[in-house]
Amino acid sequence: MFSHNKRLQYTVRVSECNPALANLMLEQFGGPQGELAAACRYFTQALAEDDPGRKDLLMDIATEELSHLEVIGTIVAMLNKGAKGRLAEGVDAEADAFRSITGAGNDSHVTQVLYGGGAPLVNSAGVPWTAAYIDTIGEPTADLRSNIAAEARAKIIYERLINCTDDPGVKEALGFLMTREIAHQKSFEKALYSITPNFPPGKLEGDARFTNVYFNMSQGDGDMRGSWNQGQQWQFVSDRNEQSAVDGGDGMPSVNLTTEEEAALNAMALRTQSEPSEDPVTGAELKAGTQGGDPMNRTPIKPM
Amino acid sequence: MFSHNKRLQYTVRVSECNPALANLMLEQFGGPQGELAAACRYFTQALAEDDPGRKDLLMDIATEELSHLEVIGTIVAMLNKGAKGRLAEGVDAEADAFRSITGAGNDSHVTQVLYGGGAPLVNSAGVPWTAAYIDTIGEPTADLRSNIAAEARAKIIYERLINCTDDPGVKEALGFLMTREIAHQKSFEKALYSITPNFPPGKLEGDARFTNVYFNMSQGDGDMRGSWNQGQQWQFVSDRNEQSAVDGGDGMPSVNLTTEEEAALNAMALRTQSEPSEDPVTGAELKAGTQGGDPMNRTPIKPM
Amino acid sequence: MFSHNKRLQYTVRVSECNPALANLMLEQFGGPQGELAAACRYFTQALAEDDPGRKDLLMDIATEELSHLEVIGTIVAMLNKGAKGRLAEGVDAEADAFRSITGAGNDSHVTQVLYGGGAPLVNSAGVPWTAAYIDTIGEPTADLRSNIAAEARAKIIYERLINCTDDPGVKEALGFLMTREIAHQKSFEKALYSITPNFPPGKLEGDARFTNVYFNMSQGDGDMRGSWNQGQQWQFVSDRNEQSAVDGGDGMPSVNLTTEEEAALNAMALRTQSEPSEDPVTGAELKAGTQGGDPMNRTPIKPM
Amino acid sequence: MFSHNKRLQYTVRVSECNPALANLMLEQFGGPQGELAAACRYFTQALAEDDPGRKDLLMDIATEELSHLEVIGTIVAMLNKGAKGRLAEGVDAEADAFRSITGAGNDSHVTQVLYGGGAPLVNSAGVPWTAAYIDTIGEPTADLRSNIAAEARAKIIYERLINCTDDPGVKEALGFLMTREIAHQKSFEKALYSITPNFPPGKLEGDARFTNVYFNMSQGDGDMRGSWNQGQQWQFVSDRNEQSAVDGGDGMPSVNLTTEEEAALNAMALRTQSEPSEDPVTGAELKAGTQGGDPMNRTPIKPM
Amino acid sequence: MFSHNKRLQYTVRVSECNPALANLMLEQFGGPQGELAAACRYFTQALAEDDPGRKDLLMDIATEELSHLEVIGTIVAMLNKGAKGRLAEGVDAEADAFRSITGAGNDSHVTQVLYGGGAPLVNSAGVPWTAAYIDTIGEPTADLRSNIAAEARAKIIYERLINCTDDPGVKEALGFLMTREIAHQKSFEKALYSITPNFPPGKLEGDARFTNVYFNMSQGDGDMRGSWNQGQQWQFVSDRNEQSAVDGGDGMPSVNLTTEEEAALNAMALRTQSEPSEDPVTGAELKAGTQGGDPMNRTPIKPM
Amino acid sequence: MFSHNKRLQYTVRVSECNPALANLMLEQFGGPQGELAAACRYFTQALAEDDPGRKDLLMDIATEELSHLEVIGTIVAMLNKGAKGRLAEGVDAEADAFRSITGAGNDSHVTQVLYGGGAPLVNSAGVPWTAAYIDTIGEPTADLRSNIAAEARAKIIYERLINCTDDPGVKEALGFLMTREIAHQKSFEKALYSITPNFPPGKLEGDARFTNVYFNMSQGDGDMRGSWNQGQQWQFVSDRNEQSAVDGGDGMPSVNLTTEEEAALNAMALRTQSEPSEDPVTGAELKAGTQGGDPMNRTPIKPM
Repeated sequence: MFSHNKRLQYTVRVSECNPALANLMLEQFGGPQGELAAACRYFTQALAEDDPGRKDLLMDIATEELSHLEVIGTIVAMLNKGAKGRLAEGVDAEADAFRSITGAGNDSHVTQVLYGGGAPLVNSAGVPWTAAYIDTIGEPTADLRSNIAAEARAKIIYERLINCTDDPGVKEALGFLMTREIAHQKSFEKALYSITPNFPPGKLEGDARFTNVYFNMSQGDGDMRGSWNQGQQWQFVSDRNEQSAVDGGDGMPSVNLTTEEEAALNAMALRTQSEPSEDPVTGAELKAGTQGGDPMNRTPIKPM
Repeated sequence: MFSHNKRLQYTVRVSECNPALANLMLEQFGGPQGELAAACRYFTQALAEDDPGRKDLLMDIATEELSHLEVIGTIVAMLNKGAKGRLAEGVDAEADAFRSITGAGNDSHVTQVLYGGGAPLVNSAGVPWTAAYIDTIGEPTADLRSNIAAEARAKIIYERLINCTDDPGVKEALGFLMTREIAHQKSFEKALYSITPNFPPGKLEGDARFTNVYFNMSQGDGDMRGSWNQGQQWQFVSDRNEQSAVDGGDGMPSVNLTTEEEAALNAMALRTQSEPSEDPVTGAELKAGTQGGDPMNRTPIKPM
Repeated sequence: MFSHNKRLQYTVRVSECNPALANLMLEQFGGPQGELAAACRYFTQALAEDDPGRKDLLMDIATEELSHLEVIGTIVAMLNKGAKGRLAEGVDAEADAFRSITGAGNDSHVTQVLYGGGAPLVNSAGVPWTAAYIDTIGEPTADLRSNIAAEARAKIIYERLINCTDDPGVKEALGFLMTREIAHQKSFEKALYSITPNFPPGKLEGDARFTNVYFNMSQGDGDMRGSWNQGQQWQFVSDRNEQSAVDGGDGMPSVNLTTEEEAALNAMALRTQSEPSEDPVTGAELKAGTQGGDPMNRTPIKPM
Repeated sequence: MFSHNKRLQYTVRVSECNPALANLMLEQFGGPQGELAAACRYFTQALAEDDPGRKDLLMDIATEELSHLEVIGTIVAMLNKGAKGRLAEGVDAEADAFRSITGAGNDSHVTQVLYGGGAPLVNSAGVPWTAAYIDTIGEPTADLRSNIAAEARAKIIYERLINCTDDPGVKEALGFLMTREIAHQKSFEKALYSITPNFPPGKLEGDARFTNVYFNMSQGDGDMRGSWNQGQQWQFVSDRNEQSAVDGGDGMPSVNLTTEEEAALNAMALRTQSEPSEDPVTGAELKAGTQGGDPMNRTPIKPM
Repeated sequence: MFSHNKRLQYTVRVSECNPALANLMLEQFGGPQGELAAACRYFTQALAEDDPGRKDLLMDIATEELSHLEVIGTIVAMLNKGAKGRLAEGVDAEADAFRSITGAGNDSHVTQVLYGGGAPLVNSAGVPWTAAYIDTIGEPTADLRSNIAAEARAKIIYERLINCTDDPGVKEALGFLMTREIAHQKSFEKALYSITPNFPPGKLEGDARFTNVYFNMSQGDGDMRGSWNQGQQWQFVSDRNEQSAVDGGDGMPSVNLTTEEEAALNAMALRTQSEPSEDPVTGAELKAGTQGGDPMNRTPIKPM
Repeated sequence: MFSHNKRLQYTVRVSECNPALANLMLEQFGGPQGELAAACRYFTQALAEDDPGRKDLLMDIATEELSHLEVIGTIVAMLNKGAKGRLAEGVDAEADAFRSITGAGNDSHVTQVLYGGGAPLVNSAGVPWTAAYIDTIGEPTADLRSNIAAEARAKIIYERLINCTDDPGVKEALGFLMTREIAHQKSFEKALYSITPNFPPGKLEGDARFTNVYFNMSQGDGDMRGSWNQGQQWQFVSDRNEQSAVDGGDGMPSVNLTTEEEAALNAMALRTQSEPSEDPVTGAELKAGTQGGDPMNRTPIKPM
């Protein structure tokens, strides 16, 4: 069960209202790398986890992320507070209101007109949060790696936001939130490496013929070798012929059909067959302009 | 520039049509952990990357993932081929067609009725693929971790699919695809660890007061200690008072308002104030049923 | 700040695993009327609210909804627990696994294959949760009405789920959750009616010419009168002529254009004008089948 | 059956083109609180409704909302008309076109570049309309409450838009649309209160032990009492111990497993168990920077 | 302005309730090729259209599509009517209700549990309708082609649905709806070909060097020639060298940077550079299983 | 199988960085009419196609579209390169960074803050790409028409983008991409017209009673006749009575219910019946303001 304490995990002090800055901050409130995503990610993993250590860890961090969601959402609410009142009470002359809403910048018009200067669960583009952002699949050796990566991403977005404001109170609270992502990443690293073995993830072994092969699929000026494709662990394959049909077959797909299925497919093929030998007049030709002599004075794009 | 060779990277041999199995396979075609997501993830990273080694690596693997997309999509197309012809030509009696479409199972009705037995970019629930699945943010020390995690997840979904079919050709091709995820994870690991330092990701240091703190936010039977929250690296905080307002402030948010902003907020507060001392009659009370003596013979849910 | 107690708000006792029932339960976990939507709805309102009474109320209920999210998610996790282990360890023969995953019913294949038998934030169709479900706009006289309606909807979905299971522990926990929606609706009703006036919502009056008009837009057998369109409060308008251009104008839109804008529009009009007097041969006519004498043996649909 | 009269329900007169204002107006065209959502909401309810009075009411208002969709869409089209022609015919020098498209403000570049200066079904952030905005569930005592709330929200968004323009024709048409939301809310109120009883919604009673309980989940400075949690109707519970496991159990979840399920879960637990006693070296530690002595000249974030 | 007549455009007669068939029918109600998409497509085009003929045509067909939406939605509502009542009143024993809801098939559980047996704007997978389905861009020579294609697609989905039911009333109404798509396609073809020229669409000519080139990008067994890539109109290019950098440049991208930009990029490059010469130990290696000698008894996937 | 050549299909030369222009360009990278949509559209059709000519054609063009995706994505990456470095290394003072990110215009803040100055698969509004943009249904006579329309739309968006930049290298590369859409449209036209017959699409004939009827659904000033509704091919129906219930029935829907279903529906009707004769007091009336004499000093909106 969750309970709530009216004190924030970190005190939020905002110097002045700024709806455009508020809108940027939404990235970490309702954005893909934000705190709702983090909280939901760990909370849902915790619910289904059976390992007692991981279950506890996941719920600890999920709860803290909810508390961070409150901190970042409070920053958004404080930065929007001035706009909220003016908008709700219609205190500005219309032209001023329009200028203020349209001119603040970076989609803050959405936060104001649609969300009334609140703290909506959208990102800084106004895109509603979606659980499609959560990549949990229910296997710890994969999910912990996803968590590590998620913390790394969130750390970076905070870093970018910190670089965008000189409001000391905002900067300080963002610094706290950013730091906690580092701490969480460390915890998830420890949890991952307390599983033996954790690579490859899951239960099945790979097919030994292909585990150590590196296919050089992109070729030309810029080909590089490095530890990711050279050394004892790698078989490097550049020959295009050895890259396709690597099973030794002909590379062509096949399926066995029943007689009935085959008959239906043949009927479809006949009905929809393209006749390559003919050169039909097409719809586009019926009313095509004449390139170079267009009666509509079309603009040739060359020379540009 | 991409070019295409009509031979698949791995020969696909399907024993018999099976639209329900085809539908499950869509997870790795148009699902969140599937090959389109993988290809798009690495391809977009490659475009913006300036490090020559990583750029090459990302484009190599992006291109291979496109080739995998072709393999898994071909499996889907082969498994659906029988249904496709029958449906297009309407060869079944209506009741049979309905039974066959509805009875195959697990959302394969969508692949059939909406997508004509093709290979649509949806997952096994029929949810269209979305770029919201891609978590690339443009910082290598984060993106490489995201790639490692993505490969781990894809490996697991293939493992689950392999466990669901006894068609030897499908199993073999899935085994190839699964194995390549292992190889790709290895490459991304090497690329990540060839950056020094790579932790914490990005440029800013954390706030030293909070980097090594573990907040025990979830308490009760089941609390556990482990390397993720104990040992030299951790300061473990269980006291609820030390978990909130950790900056030493009062935990209450504040913002400086202009006089004009304050006046507007006050006007809004007055207009929308809740009057706690009064007990108003509400809409719900106007036509409420009487619990326990309901004239509509409502069903009491207790005792259950 | 949130904290977490490992005891659930309501003890969950599940009699036996049932992935199809688990999948139905997802409606109240990651569905549009579910607990995540409720928690997010009230939590975001609380952050931006300045009225002390409503702010407290909203945070109280938001926190309880999070605790409900934990209860319903735990039900899902318990119902899926058997499937989770079998799937992860691949203990079934492939054909059995396929049958079990495909045959359980109602999209539970998604929960299993994609989410590993966990508790994903999707609804019972596998559609990921989206903040588009949340209709908060930042005006209390509207948001409280939205909350009242949301509680009413959630109550009904629980009622439907209760009707679908005879597992006494599941039924009992669902009954608790359903009941709390009733209690929350009552609280929101009280909060709405403690604002005077609360109708019409917001600040602007309506245009007195149109506030009490009822336009009878749908006519024919089935026209009905009732308190919603008759009586002292209503002016009932059925005459089609009095329903359009009610401002007394001609009902035609107009805009003033600059000379430059007009010239550009005229150029576009000329370039794309349709020539009504001509009867052009079209693309469809080039290769049209002959209805009734089709060489492809098309099936006439009449008589059916 | 629907029919259409070329006269608008309200005459639209726009003073001058303004693509940024057009873009704001999209909130009530293709936004969550807009007219398409309203029309679809009532129309779909009407289709499934069996009560003759409500069915008629719902179709009357649905039809009027479609007519409002036409009015607001016409406003958008008129405000965009100048931009549409200039863009289509490419009359501006490139730098001017870029400035004009980028500088108009608030996402109007999307309306112009992607939608050609038309009236797309997106909101003012460019987010496509989704039926996820519609919360109809097919129970009149809930749906009517949803409708009441929806009208209240739409009224407010119109109020905000009215405050943003001084074009008298736009203002007047918006005033008409806003007023009709008030009238519709009144009708839906009447329809709700003509059902006896209408609370609690649906058929099942609540569990009498929990219907009148208020859990004080958020505690600290700012706790408030009011009609929503005090008085004869409420039992107020602040003790944290009485808030969890309210059924009297231990608050711990349980499920009965078959022997086979248990074996599989144990195998999974063994495979993925975290070893708490060990302190493993992790990936993050392999290439961690030294906080405070970083060779990369990382920027310490403190003191800020 | 729209008005509504209570008579349907086509009388709907349903033989018996069938929630699974209802669910399939949703494809043409709230699916991508369905009637809402059609109505919205033409209606929004009509609003922004200035050519009087096309404007009238678009509004005529938009209005008819709304009337079709009513017909198909009524079919859905009739097919669901039995389930709706039983569900709402909870008349079945729980196990029966579960069986009935889960067993009907093809996602009809969503229509029942979430939407109460109504007519929701989702497709047969339960995916909510989205305006992302509408591809209108505001240029008639493109939009009319989109409309032609949309009618063709809708015709096919109706054909598939007709093949799935032997209920004569449903079949007959679907036949009407399908036929009208044919008629609408004809009208849009006429409207397109009454514009001269209509190809290429828009105003700009193509670059004459590339308008008639066919790049043979996919090579191998299965290469085919036909009117789409051979004949007088085509220059066929198979040589891989002539397919890339077709402008005669080196195919490598370039951008001019300011000194400041270059310095920042260099700093980023240095910070995140990959060191190819070293072979670092990676996270995956720390706890990797030994392929072929795995202590966890991993299952080798070969031979399969 | 796909392979990659490091030379672009068209050399990209960008004169100077411009994140706002980069953001506009995203329309053709991750937007609905962009190259990813094109590539996915043709690639998925190719996988399921059995006609050898079309299969080859579709894969040729899919592969070229992938190469175009690389060209447009490279343009985006080059235009963003300056912003990427400055942002990553935090070289600007905070206020400058904020101004630069917020002031560049048209949602480029999202590309910068969330995506780090990369090339994300979103459109110029920041909306993530979705497979809902792809309208493939698996019937060639429909899909080819969809492809023709898609090429027409993409051509127009390129035309608009060309009109927005005077950077000669960008303009030239866009001109190439635009031209190729023309060439592809021509190929798809040829492929469509090599099928006989191709109209109506699919297998079923229309109902001869309705194939040639034009319903004049929108009436009033502005009614027009043209080849799309007059001439030998059309029967023009304006009489409202002949537009509804065109089957000759009464236009009223019906369904046969079982006794049990009827009883349940009757119970629901009774429980939720609206009582038209009564005029209940409603929730809105409990706390309604007095229009014209509002104690809250509401602003009357008339006269405006």
